[in-house]
Amino acid sequence: MMSTTPTTYSFGMIGLGTMGRNLLLNLADHEFAVAGYDKDASKLTLLSEEGAGLPVKGFADLADFVHSLQTPRSIMLLVPAGKIVDSVIDELRPLLAPGDIVIDGGNSYFTDTTRRAEALEAEGFHFFGMGISGGEEGARFGPSMMPGGDQQAYQVMKPMFEAIAAQVNGEPCVTYIGPGAAGHFVKMVHNGIEYGLMQLIAETYGVLKQGLGLDNEAIGQVFAQWNAGRLQSFLLDITKDIFVFQAPNTDHLLLDDIRDEARSKGTGKWTSQIAMDLEVPLSTIDTAVALRNLSKYKALREKLAAQYSPTLPTLEADKDQLLASLEQAFYFTMVITYAQGMHMLSKASQEYSYGLQLANIARIWRGGCIIRSGFLNDIYNAYQQAPELEHLLLDKSVAELVQQAVPGARTVVSAAIAAGLAVPAYASCVSYFDSFRTARLPSNLIQAQRDYFGAHTYELIGMEGLFHTQWTPTHEDASNKQDIHLDEENKREEQVLPNK
Amino acid sequence: MMSTTPTTYSFGMIGLGTMGRNLLLNLADHEFAVAGYDKDASKLTLLSEEGAGLPVKGFADLADFVHSLQTPRSIMLLVPAGKIVDSVIDELRPLLAPGDIVIDGGNSYFTDTTRRAEALEAEGFHFFGMGISGGEEGARFGPSMMPGGDQQAYQVMKPMFEAIAAQVNGEPCVTYIGPGAAGHFVKMVHNGIEYGLMQLIAETYGVLKQGLGLDNEAIGQVFAQWNAGRLQSFLLDITKDIFVFQAPNTDHLLLDDIRDEARSKGTGKWTSQIAMDLEVPLSTIDTAVALRNLSKYKALREKLAAQYSPTLPTLEADKDQLLASLEQAFYFTMVITYAQGMHMLSKASQEYSYGLQLANIARIWRGGCIIRSGFLNDIYNAYQQAPELEHLLLDKSVAELVQQAVPGARTVVSAAIAAGLAVPAYASCVSYFDSFRTARLPSNLIQAQRDYFGAHTYELIGMEGLFHTQWTPTHEDASNKQDIHLDEENKREEQVLPNK
Repeated sequence: MMSTTPTTYSFGMIGLGTMGRNLLLNLADHEFAVAGYDKDASKLTLLSEEGAGLPVKGFADLADFVHSLQTPRSIMLLVPAGKIVDSVIDELRPLLAPGDIVIDGGNSYFTDTTRRAEALEAEGFHFFGMGISGGEEGARFGPSMMPGGDQQAYQVMKPMFEAIAAQVNGEPCVTYIGPGAAGHFVKMVHNGIEYGLMQLIAETYGVLKQGLGLDNEAIGQVFAQWNAGRLQSFLLDITKDIFVFQAPNTDHLLLDDIRDEARSKGTGKWTSQIAMDLEVPLSTIDTAVALRNLSKYKALREKLAAQYSPTLPTLEADKDQLLASLEQAFYFTMVITYAQGMHMLSKASQEYSYGLQLANIARIWRGGCIIRSGFLNDIYNAYQQAPELEHLLLDKSVAELVQQAVPGARTVVSAAIAAGLAVPAYASCVSYFDSFRTARLPSNLIQAQRDYFGAHTYELIGMEGLFHTQWTPTHEDASNKQDIHLDEENKREEQVLPNK
Repeated sequence: MMSTTPTTYSFGMIGLGTMGRNLLLNLADHEFAVAGYDKDASKLTLLSEEGAGLPVKGFADLADFVHSLQTPRSIMLLVPAGKIVDSVIDELRPLLAPGDIVIDGGNSYFTDTTRRAEALEAEGFHFFGMGISGGEEGARFGPSMMPGGDQQAYQVMKPMFEAIAAQVNGEPCVTYIGPGAAGHFVKMVHNGIEYGLMQLIAETYGVLKQGLGLDNEAIGQVFAQWNAGRLQSFLLDITKDIFVFQAPNTDHLLLDDIRDEARSKGTGKWTSQIAMDLEVPLSTIDTAVALRNLSKYKALREKLAAQYSPTLPTLEADKDQLLASLEQAFYFTMVITYAQGMHMLSKASQEYSYGLQLANIARIWRGGCIIRSGFLNDIYNAYQQAPELEHLLLDKSVAELVQQAVPGARTVVSAAIAAGLAVPAYASCVSYFDSFRTARLPSNLIQAQRDYFGAHTYELIGMEGLFHTQWTPTHEDASNKQDIHLDEENKREEQVLPNK
């Protein structure tokens, strides 16, 4: 497999795990001659087996690999996010020449990407943080790609990226996202939306199974039916497949044997954490993150179930009517989840000067990626018509869809809450919607309280400036500090507060 | 005011804002001779005015201030969290002697405290990160204090801290919390609970005002009545005061003139962000943080209200019955909010080896601090009886209270959601409870999906190890990548997915 004669390859991949190999093979399919490097010899063997007959070559030596590439070089890293990315870049840097392009194709934390881009660009290299979505299959046969970095360097990569990306309506699912870490940021929000949608599908499964008592076959049919209509999406599509996948040598679904403790790799959590820094409400994605965490406390859940759930809750309702409401509810909550993600992108674009084109982002999410769905066309259309749209829910066509679907969401969520069936992400979507369409929230009380106990000041309607009020009696009146004596038998009734 | 003769003081304060001055005056009230330092001369004037007749002295020069203190010195910083703390420490360090105790009494981020403690302890100083709650009044007449750091140094400070702390049943609301940043960590979680409770009170106000159509006088009576019973708390107590506070020279409440855009200083946000790192579900506090952020989008809310809220929602219900349910609902959601915070403390104690005594923490929160309430006695009792209690909801007495209150919560939340009245934090509490008491969640589907699209593996019931399944047809079958053509007129119905 190793040749002593250097050959010239147009693209190099560092890290030949499944994603890295599949992307290389995808490029080779499109007649790009490509090289791969991995310290692990078994990965090189796999590459050579899977790439038989294709213009792809593996290297076990980093310098040989780098020298085999055409200059300016295009080198992608697909290694685990974190310190490994830095150590690979440190190894690579002495071998590079100015003008070379280094692409981090992993799920790096966006501020790491900002830092690396600044360091590498200061040395004359180009650095791209590129989000890639589509999983194994997407990498092999057409992912959605979100590259951020130097716009001129993007022109060099463009033909390659466009050749291997998923295609929708003849358009490739890749576009220049923006400077710096814009690509990784957008991929992170993509994953946040993914967390939200997956939690919603799981709750739907819970309503169908526990609430309505449907068997797996009937549940699978609901998902298949939805996926054939306006709810069409990759996630529903694989869900319907999961509902026909038998556990080997059994008469039941593999799904039934899988533990209900959901794992995560961090991108959803990052989305929620950064949304809080950006002061964007993202409650459905927050809920999805919290529920992944909650699911991990299996032993505690079993104890609490024994304590509080003598019987499992079912929904008393006409099955067909509830299924119709549930379809509306799922549509509504799906719209809200995408809307939260898009809102976060608008805010981040202002905050970090990414210059994001939300229409383009919706466009490249329509194919190849995990959150692709029919509804992304509606999002695309909304931002095409109004590139500066402040919030997706302001779009007239989206508003019509929402108005039509919201009654079903209210029916399902209020019934589930009354019965005791957990629908946390569904409920969070309704709460988000009802809060955002409230012109006057009760949050004035929070401002009054903050000023009362902490002199944090408040603002007045129709006036500029910050105000503070002495809400309590003067200090002199309050200066007799009291030692509170609680009667242990009647403690809840008799406690006296010290500062009154 | 300035004396040329150095006097010896037993405690020094750097930063003479309201909190710093009030704590100094509190110490002076208890006959400790104390010194204060501030660059701002106006603060020194205020200190001298407010401290007339008390053993308190202000310094405009840092070296004079430090040299006026008995050794080993006890010096507290009450300056804004962040870089200012580091710069004050840098100025202070050359003036200190080994054995001196430096106390950061502000709301510093807990990892900053860990870093500062390590740096100062390496030089032979003691460093305390101390959370102080109680606002202006608490600082002046008895706060709740959460000191973390070196346990032996705590013994030096103990008499002073115990003298000035709030007292409940003759016990001071201060205790040694744990090593390193334990004090600041616990104070942060205190503030997270505070965010949750404040959001719940605001939503209650919304239900009473908008849902039931009560006027301010009637709303104030509800809060006053609640505060006289099992719901007694500092936050309800100040709320009832706010409902009688007239705007100067008007016939209406000041509250009605205050803007509904809630501000925040970050501790609630940190609590949620760190809970996500610790993998603790904290959904009510997350919701409170999201809603503070949502409230800030005033102009957007007005646009969405115009689009989606032709009429404001009211609740169709018997007023007295709904008030009874609301009291239960508030009790239930208050319990859940504290339970989330206590759960986070348990997890953090394991993760950071803080050795937290949750009973002691509940004990010192019963007086002086913002989240003090009658229910903290129940929390105290629960952890007294079972120091290793995994979750507050497992305590038998708490469980009885919860079982009794949960029907009211279901009634209120399901009615509000059906009507379109936003109750996000209320709903999140019900969802948290219903999820945690579910032995078998639908999260197995999330694991199946993750394995399907990303080969992230799953676990099987009753078996150890991680498993991966090839859920799709083999690569060969799927290798004909399709260019998807959407009929723009019927796009939602006709999209075909590329990897099927």
